[in-house]
Amino acid sequence: MSELPGIVITGASGRMGQMLIKTVVASDKCKLVGVVERAGSDWIGRDVGEAMGGAPLGVTVTDDALAVFAHAQAVIDFTAPAATVEFAGLAAQARCVHVIGTTGMTEDDLKKIASASRHATIIRAGNMSLGVNLLTKLTKMVAAALDADYDIEIIEAHHNRKVDAPSGTALMLGEAAADGRGVKLEDVRDSGRDGITGARKKGDIGFSAIRGGDIIGEHDVMFAGEGERIILRHVASDRSLFAKGALKAALWGQGQKPGEYDMLDVLGL
Amino acid sequence: MSELPGIVITGASGRMGQMLIKTVVASDKCKLVGVVERAGSDWIGRDVGEAMGGAPLGVTVTDDALAVFAHAQAVIDFTAPAATVEFAGLAAQARCVHVIGTTGMTEDDLKKIASASRHATIIRAGNMSLGVNLLTKLTKMVAAALDADYDIEIIEAHHNRKVDAPSGTALMLGEAAADGRGVKLEDVRDSGRDGITGARKKGDIGFSAIRGGDIIGEHDVMFAGEGERIILRHVASDRSLFAKGALKAALWGQGQKPGEYDMLDVLGL
Amino acid sequence: MSELPGIVITGASGRMGQMLIKTVVASDKCKLVGVVERAGSDWIGRDVGEAMGGAPLGVTVTDDALAVFAHAQAVIDFTAPAATVEFAGLAAQARCVHVIGTTGMTEDDLKKIASASRHATIIRAGNMSLGVNLLTKLTKMVAAALDADYDIEIIEAHHNRKVDAPSGTALMLGEAAADGRGVKLEDVRDSGRDGITGARKKGDIGFSAIRGGDIIGEHDVMFAGEGERIILRHVASDRSLFAKGALKAALWGQGQKPGEYDMLDVLGL
Amino acid sequence: MSELPGIVITGASGRMGQMLIKTVVASDKCKLVGVVERAGSDWIGRDVGEAMGGAPLGVTVTDDALAVFAHAQAVIDFTAPAATVEFAGLAAQARCVHVIGTTGMTEDDLKKIASASRHATIIRAGNMSLGVNLLTKLTKMVAAALDADYDIEIIEAHHNRKVDAPSGTALMLGEAAADGRGVKLEDVRDSGRDGITGARKKGDIGFSAIRGGDIIGEHDVMFAGEGERIILRHVASDRSLFAKGALKAALWGQGQKPGEYDMLDVLGL
Repeated sequence: MSELPGIVITGASGRMGQMLIKTVVASDKCKLVGVVERAGSDWIGRDVGEAMGGAPLGVTVTDDALAVFAHAQAVIDFTAPAATVEFAGLAAQARCVHVIGTTGMTEDDLKKIASASRHATIIRAGNMSLGVNLLTKLTKMVAAALDADYDIEIIEAHHNRKVDAPSGTALMLGEAAADGRGVKLEDVRDSGRDGITGARKKGDIGFSAIRGGDIIGEHDVMFAGEGERIILRHVASDRSLFAKGALKAALWGQGQKPGEYDMLDVLGL
Repeated sequence: MSELPGIVITGASGRMGQMLIKTVVASDKCKLVGVVERAGSDWIGRDVGEAMGGAPLGVTVTDDALAVFAHAQAVIDFTAPAATVEFAGLAAQARCVHVIGTTGMTEDDLKKIASASRHATIIRAGNMSLGVNLLTKLTKMVAAALDADYDIEIIEAHHNRKVDAPSGTALMLGEAAADGRGVKLEDVRDSGRDGITGARKKGDIGFSAIRGGDIIGEHDVMFAGEGERIILRHVASDRSLFAKGALKAALWGQGQKPGEYDMLDVLGL
Repeated sequence: MSELPGIVITGASGRMGQMLIKTVVASDKCKLVGVVERAGSDWIGRDVGEAMGGAPLGVTVTDDALAVFAHAQAVIDFTAPAATVEFAGLAAQARCVHVIGTTGMTEDDLKKIASASRHATIIRAGNMSLGVNLLTKLTKMVAAALDADYDIEIIEAHHNRKVDAPSGTALMLGEAAADGRGVKLEDVRDSGRDGITGARKKGDIGFSAIRGGDIIGEHDVMFAGEGERIILRHVASDRSLFAKGALKAALWGQGQKPGEYDMLDVLGL
Repeated sequence: MSELPGIVITGASGRMGQMLIKTVVASDKCKLVGVVERAGSDWIGRDVGEAMGGAPLGVTVTDDALAVFAHAQAVIDFTAPAATVEFAGLAAQARCVHVIGTTGMTEDDLKKIASASRHATIIRAGNMSLGVNLLTKLTKMVAAALDADYDIEIIEAHHNRKVDAPSGTALMLGEAAADGRGVKLEDVRDSGRDGITGARKKGDIGFSAIRGGDIIGEHDVMFAGEGERIILRHVASDRSLFAKGALKAALWGQGQKPGEYDMLDVLGL
């Protein structure tokens, strides 16, 4: 009898879903026990390995999330807000850890997630990499150490298929900077500069979004003063970084008591 | 009798005006013969060296541009569109070379400049540095060599007092890229990305504007493809660079026949 | 009867060899007809797809290069100097195109390659990417346009397993810069700066080698003057870039007359 | 009677000396009371303002350090090791604060400085900027948080007149990284990479030194792992930054008890 935690992946047919499946299959610390797609997907009923164009993996894609959650220890979920809210309820019912990498959730969505976390262990992060989470911590520290004579600018670059700007990670870094300064990001956010903008407003946090090619994800937090600049920079060079972080979270969550956690908890930062 | 060309500086009290005055005074290839400010400025009637807080230079600030243009070989002008259009007429009348670093001119302004250039040598450039003008040339070449599978992004950074975005130089680079591709910049310009933008449109030229501290001027032209990126980058580290370029233009203009020129002509690129 | 050119890959068990095999198999413009490993490798006699841990590809690994070259239209070879020199002779005998990505060859090796190219089409390049070859061309141009008041520095970054410094590509860029200036790289090369070096010698071309993580390959050519810098930068983000370039070369070589070519020829730059 | 602290500048005729003099003269928190040059300098006996090519400042350059130290509250000293050791003794005798920006000192020099600090307040730093000192702190933290799977590389760029490599600041950052990892820099330092180096040794801290143009000072600390990189970067864009930091240290030192301090003490980091 295998003692390895069983993992379910949702949104199997997407780019991130397939990366997660490969990461779980390659790991010797867990096993893949279920794969979920939305009803109507032509992946339903097929072996997921074959659907991905490779060798069979012995796991059939299903749209019955609860049935597979019931036999799993964790579900890793990078889908869309509506699906994620529903999965949170089901994961709570099934008592399995829910790792959430989905972004773009509303206040209302977040309330429902919080509510589910009363009965379930939920780990949610805009970015699952060790480096970005460390950068978030440094950003808060530096913003607290320097005063508003140092202008804060956050610059991010992503591939040409990304549909939103600034990135969720850029906003997470912006929140950390605002937090370090004791202000609210919404009061100081300056994104989409274009035209006659006037001089930069002291205390603002600026955002720039670069889009091109296959850039996986690059983030700069710049503190620009008179005579000097400090730049905290993160470069992701391999998409599997995020899948590995999510799997790390799923394993860390085993045995944690119910509640909502983030990657700083997982990484012990 | 001195044979050195006599130079007039307009907009003397501004940051760029003072830099131009210092550059002309420090040069052994020309001499400062006049300094113009707008009527009503409290610099009028004062020795310009003293007005700048230093030793006297023997040149009194005036608002009578034509009077000083009449005894000069060149006027260097980094002011504002309305003033520059007027100076162009006066310089043509006085038969002196007009070096224009003013930006933000309308189509109508440019027509008036063109009209003045029938009788005068005008050298006009959004950026007077050798490096930026070389970069413009490279940008056009690379844009012509690569197809639209390479996404073009132009990123610029300037100090926190700059009031417009993207910078004139960024737009000049964008024009060069569009030109290399055989398209018009206005048809493919994508600036001020913010919110749900959708995937990047193939063929677009994107712009990002970073503002902070005392950054003099940095410009990146990125060509991002699948698996690789080329970046052409210019960093200005000393504001006198632009003043030196303008002076070089003023000297080059001596003896040129009437017409409108740019820095590529001056630099022989 | 298939009309697609048949390709042989040498050095099949290495990282680059496997990337080349995948690239050839994925292409619809050619087919994989042979795979060569050195005598004694435990891959000999196995199906190469299975040896790589995947589905069988119907091609058996062999150490008899000539036998497979004889039925191929091109061989793609990223191995080591001694092997490459031998393969050049065999490819010439078999009248098939030889694409060489091997680096670190001596003057003597290069003479033997040149000799083989009297009877065979050889395409040899230190770097097979479009971007790097374009950068080489730009580097030569800019070095020719700027004088020695602009200091040239070449900075490269690669993964932590790379055993030589500076990279072959950095040296290729250095050769282009020296060429643009009309000097020999060996007379102006300054690599491995450490300790009390004295002030930088005017006209030198400096090299820096950064090593860390899984960096695929990044190259900067910096022209640093008084008040400004121009930087030409290339970032490789996907190793398959080089395999795709090599395959492009193999296909381009079909029908070319014997001789030694480089990627500038292939790319028509 | 003026209550402003009186400052002495040593090495007045050098680039840094002149910057320090201008900074002290421009400040309303202190006054310039003495200027020291080495015996034999042709600045001796002249008014320092005039020697610098400007208006007189009412302070005569001298080679009698003790005489001017005796009437000062602080001496700011960016000279050379031998001079600095001597000045430390004289400053201790005169009971004035000694701010030391001199680099390149030997173990023996440092012992003498330490000995002087039993009777005097000495503030010594390889780099006087707020940003660099903050970066040092961050470097130690990140090095402690990440294990040796993240390769540490320190890259610095300076103007073409710099005679040593790596820079004192780069070594200071390297010490901080080594400290964070609990190792000695001398055991893991890898500078001057060139030729067949072999694969990067795990745990090493690499250094690269770029030299060109008028670059004031740029430092990157890179932590490169599998799939991601974190880079902590500092850019100095105005040399007066260091002079302002030194003056800040001189003022902070007033009233401190004898001992050896660094900029982290001054900045309260």
